[in-house]
Amino acid sequence: MIITPDPSASPSADAADGVTVPGVDRSEGVTAPTGFRAAGVKAGIKSSGKKDLALVVNDGPRFDAAAVFTSNRFSAAPVDVSREAVRDGRLTAVVLNSGGANACTGQPGIDDAVTMARLTAEATGSKACDVGVASTGLIGVRLPMDAVANGITLAAGQLSPDGGGDAAEAIMTTDTVSKQAVWRDPAGWTIGGMAKGAGMLAPALATMLVVITTDADLEDGEMEPALWEATGASFDRADSDGCMSTNDTVILLANGASQVMPARDAFAAALTAVCVSLARQLIADAEGAEHEISLRVVNAASVEDALEVARAVARSNLFKCAIAGNDPNWGRVLAAAGTTQAAFDRDEVDVYFNDVGVFLQGAIGADRSEVDLSHRHVDVRIDLNAGQHEATIWTNDLTHGYVSENADYSS
Amino acid sequence: MIITPDPSASPSADAADGVTVPGVDRSEGVTAPTGFRAAGVKAGIKSSGKKDLALVVNDGPRFDAAAVFTSNRFSAAPVDVSREAVRDGRLTAVVLNSGGANACTGQPGIDDAVTMARLTAEATGSKACDVGVASTGLIGVRLPMDAVANGITLAAGQLSPDGGGDAAEAIMTTDTVSKQAVWRDPAGWTIGGMAKGAGMLAPALATMLVVITTDADLEDGEMEPALWEATGASFDRADSDGCMSTNDTVILLANGASQVMPARDAFAAALTAVCVSLARQLIADAEGAEHEISLRVVNAASVEDALEVARAVARSNLFKCAIAGNDPNWGRVLAAAGTTQAAFDRDEVDVYFNDVGVFLQGAIGADRSEVDLSHRHVDVRIDLNAGQHEATIWTNDLTHGYVSENADYSS
Repeated sequence: MIITPDPSASPSADAADGVTVPGVDRSEGVTAPTGFRAAGVKAGIKSSGKKDLALVVNDGPRFDAAAVFTSNRFSAAPVDVSREAVRDGRLTAVVLNSGGANACTGQPGIDDAVTMARLTAEATGSKACDVGVASTGLIGVRLPMDAVANGITLAAGQLSPDGGGDAAEAIMTTDTVSKQAVWRDPAGWTIGGMAKGAGMLAPALATMLVVITTDADLEDGEMEPALWEATGASFDRADSDGCMSTNDTVILLANGASQVMPARDAFAAALTAVCVSLARQLIADAEGAEHEISLRVVNAASVEDALEVARAVARSNLFKCAIAGNDPNWGRVLAAAGTTQAAFDRDEVDVYFNDVGVFLQGAIGADRSEVDLSHRHVDVRIDLNAGQHEATIWTNDLTHGYVSENADYSS
Repeated sequence: MIITPDPSASPSADAADGVTVPGVDRSEGVTAPTGFRAAGVKAGIKSSGKKDLALVVNDGPRFDAAAVFTSNRFSAAPVDVSREAVRDGRLTAVVLNSGGANACTGQPGIDDAVTMARLTAEATGSKACDVGVASTGLIGVRLPMDAVANGITLAAGQLSPDGGGDAAEAIMTTDTVSKQAVWRDPAGWTIGGMAKGAGMLAPALATMLVVITTDADLEDGEMEPALWEATGASFDRADSDGCMSTNDTVILLANGASQVMPARDAFAAALTAVCVSLARQLIADAEGAEHEISLRVVNAASVEDALEVARAVARSNLFKCAIAGNDPNWGRVLAAAGTTQAAFDRDEVDVYFNDVGVFLQGAIGADRSEVDLSHRHVDVRIDLNAGQHEATIWTNDLTHGYVSENADYSS
């Protein structure tokens, strides 16, 4: 199942309230479902003195967990530790920090991540092997473990059923706003989530940490495929700068506290909606972005073809710079599409910017002056006229702000 | 045969005179070999009023030609016309213009390119089917054919055995300097070349127009493989922004006027040296670049593996922004390398910035403060410790200048 923006919705309606996904509320996050507590504290890991350590604790009755991690071969120490912890499908808590990625730090880094799990287990009455660990920040630097240890103690003392917002704040790095999403199902179960990650958003995830909680009572074996489906249709389709992080982590915790067992399809759809909302919030807040771009490829011979074309355009720095300059440079869209193997006849392709057909049937269409790119949302539609499939990739423009954030600061 | 920079040469020696390739002189171009004339004129295609139309004419006795074109499926009209013209291995002249790419212009654009060939043939006493055509500039706009026609007449009247420099100048777009290269073989034959292309440099060529001439007397069937080998080891390894143009063209003309037949290997090596020089001049002048980066992957299991890793790093916007900020951010090198399928054990990988080992055997190496990136040339060496092969990709940093050039101006 793929959730794509409603094609009949106008960009301006979408822009009115930022990122809207039907059914999803952004006022709360991981503590919205029953039976979860969270906290976010200032541990002193970040030199800025801002919140930098978060705990999310599941109070049961069930402690089911599933996770998706970066496929980067230089996966960070916390990824390696969490991958092992979640292998049996059981987690009681997740500890997360910003201010340091604990990546490419060798065996000492692994030891630090294990220590974070152990300290969290001690502070929350659990076992180290049942704790997930996630870190974000600069690669190649050891974590200040004294600060981390104090932070875990501090956070454990502040755990609260209202702590989701603090936790979401504590995992921010270059994010300018925290990201939360909630699905409250009329049947009585809830899904809540939080995310961070402002650059390096790419397929196969991003520098992105996501924790999702639910009080739904799920069948054995239901969580993992639902999570793969949801991340495949959301985070995997958000492509900010094509870079893949060493630390990407999405953890789903379920406790059955609502005592309601949703239909599998209903749960999967709601989980996808939550992930789509979080993914689009990430793109909307991507480093330096001045435009959010929806690249929708329609009438493709397959979904794979549609994704290949959309990703090629999303990866074109020239295209992304043009959008930053409010230039509907459809030549750069075609130049990117032309590098793919997707099935299409170049004399049958149409390109629309905000519904203005600038390239039609292989020739020059409407004058580019008819396109207004002054608004934050940009819809690019590429009609391959080669089939009946479609897919959308969300990306953003390439701006001076992006260069500044990534050239002037280590991250 | 692959020409890589001499690993024993220090970056500072290399930086002293910009781009140096042994045996290659940059003072002359396509008219250096005997029996070629060229011209570059102001035809009025560019609104700037600068030179914008070039002719290169072969005076024989032989009229052998080979070419390599973009693999972009939205190849421009002049590419389609030239591909057909060179099919029989014979060209007498090449006409080139800047100020308009004549790409994605449909059948009217094809008609314009054919007209350029016909007018050039008329003005130089040849046949339209023996004229190559190349264009560069904005995609999706028709050429001002009156100006083009006047320019061809004007250029034909100015054809000169000293006209190579004017021709090289007339094909510039956002280039800040013209690019020429000459190999004068002691055996009595010469290869000359010119190139333009300041952005969109990527494997499978770039927004790049290249004309290479030689008075060597070549065997039948020798030119095409030599050209493929030379472009594969040069332009294909220059990766500025990962974008592939619709107009990339490399044309090689040979007339045998020196009456010397070089050994095949000697000619292929010289042709590669000329192409490497031109490719490195392009990277050195890439849009907005403040650093030229050599990404050398050593001890790989195969050349393909080395190229895959080097290209992944060259495509990382985060890495390229870090270099712009003089930050030896080796974490971003690893994050890019970690996305590849190349054979390596992550605990065996070393990364060097300007010979300082910042990541050694899978763990933190020398402090990043030991690396000085204030010079224009940056050498990044990635040792995979997985075999005995190596390859180098040349790229540049991602700067505010790049965003400005590509966001603020249509091209």
